[in-house]
Amino acid sequence: MRKLKNSELNRLSVEEFKQETKIPLIVILDNIRSLNNVGSVFRTSDAFLIEKIYLCGITATPPNKEIHKTALGSTESVAWEYAEDVVSLIKRLKDSKIKVVAIEQTENSVMLQGFKVLKNEKIAIIFGNEVKGVQQTAVNLCDATIEIPQFGTKHSLNISVSVGVVLWDLFKKMKLG
Amino acid sequence: MRKLKNSELNRLSVEEFKQETKIPLIVILDNIRSLNNVGSVFRTSDAFLIEKIYLCGITATPPNKEIHKTALGSTESVAWEYAEDVVSLIKRLKDSKIKVVAIEQTENSVMLQGFKVLKNEKIAIIFGNEVKGVQQTAVNLCDATIEIPQFGTKHSLNISVSVGVVLWDLFKKMKLG
Repeated sequence: MRKLKNSELNRLSVEEFKQETKIPLIVILDNIRSLNNVGSVFRTSDAFLIEKIYLCGITATPPNKEIHKTALGSTESVAWEYAEDVVSLIKRLKDSKIKVVAIEQTENSVMLQGFKVLKNEKIAIIFGNEVKGVQQTAVNLCDATIEIPQFGTKHSLNISVSVGVVLWDLFKKMKLG
Repeated sequence: MRKLKNSELNRLSVEEFKQETKIPLIVILDNIRSLNNVGSVFRTSDAFLIEKIYLCGITATPPNKEIHKTALGSTESVAWEYAEDVVSLIKRLKDSKIKVVAIEQTENSVMLQGFKVLKNEKIAIIFGNEVKGVQQTAVNLCDATIEIPQFGTKHSLNISVSVGVVLWDLFKKMKLG
């Protein structure tokens, strides 16, 4: 089982990435404090062909040396935009027929494994602050909330990890059937 | 969709966690440089009821202030052990009938979505160094290699994110069917 060299992985150039068909999935980061988390989300979104990242509220934007340390160039490939107010953004996306879903533990959460993706729908998923999660005012406007089932002692996963888990799960449902 | 309070999540105490039935999955971290990554892997392993974490080579061990920042107490719940040499560890685990699998891009990798978990088997998965990945000498001893499919410009995901993606995928296969 010989390990492959990076050159054998046939990754895309930034220009090829921009031309590539994306999965119909948008990531919204609202009030994310950690620059490491922001960079890591770019890197994961590059791997799974995410359409766009919206950075909201206090979330820092590229170019930024600390974001670059974990994004490693993926801020050049993945499309992104700063939108100060997440509530206005949610309304705007819903007006464009995009389903908006918060990753949050609520009374009505759907467990991630049970969340179904419909054909031809585009979904925007919101990840909130490291401590406070997604704001209740934003949750109130969402079409659904998804919960990552967790069975241990801690209340939540790290944001970068949550994004990895959710993007992989939805990528599989959208692209791999 | 009212957000749940932490007290409504019914998480386990450390003592309850230790008594809880785990999934038959062991995580091996070999030569992981970043303390953030180590802490994050503990937190994710707590959420998905991982049986044990082995820390090998240069991977730092608890108690450690930097690991604690991302582990947030999960070093107290999840069982762990330091094993200096990953090659001896692999041999030891295989002698105990545990299937050992490296997360690595090789000529013979199985894509994560296609990796099947057999009934009653216990699996140990190895994650390697942030830059060099899993050592070829360790890969050579493994029963299989799993690759996380990636479609963008970068060669790999962050280690914490890879662990999240793989643990979620195998947790679903082992526990949720």
